[in-house]
Amino acid sequence: MRILITGAAGFVGGALLGRLLRDSDEAEVTALDLTAQPSWASGPRLRWIRGGLDDRAVLDQLGRTSFDLVFHLASIPGGRAEVEPALGRCVNLDASLDLLQSLAKVRNRPRVVYASSIAVYGALSGEPVTSHTEARPAITYGAHKRMVEIALADHTRRGDMSGISLRLPGIVARPRPVSGFGSAFMSELLHAVSAAEKYVCPVSPAATAWWLSAKTAVDNLITAGTIDTCGTLQLPALRLSIAEVVNGLADLYGPERTARVTFDPDPRIEAVFGRYPALDTRAESALGFVHDGSVAEMIPNAL
Amino acid sequence: MRILITGAAGFVGGALLGRLLRDSDEAEVTALDLTAQPSWASGPRLRWIRGGLDDRAVLDQLGRTSFDLVFHLASIPGGRAEVEPALGRCVNLDASLDLLQSLAKVRNRPRVVYASSIAVYGALSGEPVTSHTEARPAITYGAHKRMVEIALADHTRRGDMSGISLRLPGIVARPRPVSGFGSAFMSELLHAVSAAEKYVCPVSPAATAWWLSAKTAVDNLITAGTIDTCGTLQLPALRLSIAEVVNGLADLYGPERTARVTFDPDPRIEAVFGRYPALDTRAESALGFVHDGSVAEMIPNAL
Repeated sequence: MRILITGAAGFVGGALLGRLLRDSDEAEVTALDLTAQPSWASGPRLRWIRGGLDDRAVLDQLGRTSFDLVFHLASIPGGRAEVEPALGRCVNLDASLDLLQSLAKVRNRPRVVYASSIAVYGALSGEPVTSHTEARPAITYGAHKRMVEIALADHTRRGDMSGISLRLPGIVARPRPVSGFGSAFMSELLHAVSAAEKYVCPVSPAATAWWLSAKTAVDNLITAGTIDTCGTLQLPALRLSIAEVVNGLADLYGPERTARVTFDPDPRIEAVFGRYPALDTRAESALGFVHDGSVAEMIPNAL
Repeated sequence: MRILITGAAGFVGGALLGRLLRDSDEAEVTALDLTAQPSWASGPRLRWIRGGLDDRAVLDQLGRTSFDLVFHLASIPGGRAEVEPALGRCVNLDASLDLLQSLAKVRNRPRVVYASSIAVYGALSGEPVTSHTEARPAITYGAHKRMVEIALADHTRRGDMSGISLRLPGIVARPRPVSGFGSAFMSELLHAVSAAEKYVCPVSPAATAWWLSAKTAVDNLITAGTIDTCGTLQLPALRLSIAEVVNGLADLYGPERTARVTFDPDPRIEAVFGRYPALDTRAESALGFVHDGSVAEMIPNAL
């Protein structure tokens, strides 16, 4: 089986690549990233391509391989796309469309797993969110993610590929320093307590968010590569308040550490990243997609 | 006031241009189209640019003018985009995104009216359709229209422009020969009866569709350019069965002419273009958008 991972040195992409190299004896993996091949990623079954999908030579190189399975994770973060929308379009939209068009040309109908985002939804009402919740993106990153979902669905309808878009929540715990993500506080909180540091949390204890560890995100990406279902899915995630996460951290590390967490809520961050309603992902659970189970499992999975 | 019309020699664009040249004493109109300037379109207030938005020189030329109002109608038809998806992407998606990006750069926040399409919906259930009906495009043309709606909404959110997307139904009566549109039968039926010709209709008398004349479509485009509302709207249209239209034609031209209409339903055309449910466009009506009123008014408006 020939597998392509874009964004293979990224936070989620790297975790996925590591898992595939560890668990799969037969996969030939092509890893694409702007950065050089990391020392931990090596082996006879790995081909590393350093470059971007907006480089025609890279696309041409990819076009010479007939991939069976593609994980498309490469993107620039939402914060950066918001201040550089033309760059956001180039990387997050145009390059994604070019990749799909290139895969379509090979005519072997690959399975394509696209890492979309909950940023597609925009402002959420209090209603439970499903993959059918109306998408009204409130950041350019989310608009581009939604557009690629539509393009992938259209390529799938045309018979060019078997596509599935997974809407990922903020994945924890991103390596420090966590930047470019409005939801950075989720990862920072976990890192700070595990490192016995003080932390000033920019949202209130009552703030609710959707939590998914990178480990479980990788489980879900691999599930998506295995099943036949096409379309756009909302990944399950734990809906937890900051207070619940702090309590979970206290159980794990002791209350003297979580006592060093204080709160200075920023109303803008609270409004956008601290008011997540319930998730209804029963359809996705029935297909085998999972969250971390409980806060007690999520924290060690994340760290 | 400086106005830009793309697709200005097209069926709807030409009708819009004619109206603006006739009714507006002060507008300076830039008309863009791939075709040469038609003889009927002239005047000291009109600048005709022959070219496409996928031509960088054309975009640069447009970028030197600060438009107050833009009607973006240029596209290739759905039938052609379906067989040439890369061309569809180039014209219907990429060139539209380039136009929006170019308009954003001028920093004068123009009003932008985008001619979207009911093709964004895809297969319709029997439920009444509103602009909030989930968009699941079943042709590439509809996927690209939906993507541009999202991009325009994002530019509007960013403050680059004041954008409104109007989802147009099949507009009648397109000039003969009507090609590239699955809904061609709607225009062909009107033309054939008015010309006292035989017509074999590829859908049944019970087939329902949404009817809007080019004249009333232009009224709605001008309304969209006048109001401040942003977002994605479903234009009102008359929901009529073929039998109702044939009866309207009989009232206008006499039953001896409509007696020459016979039916040979094509199940594929009937399924896609002959099962339109009710429209709920009360929100759009409240903003001043209209349909033709009745079949007795729609037919002469269309012809």
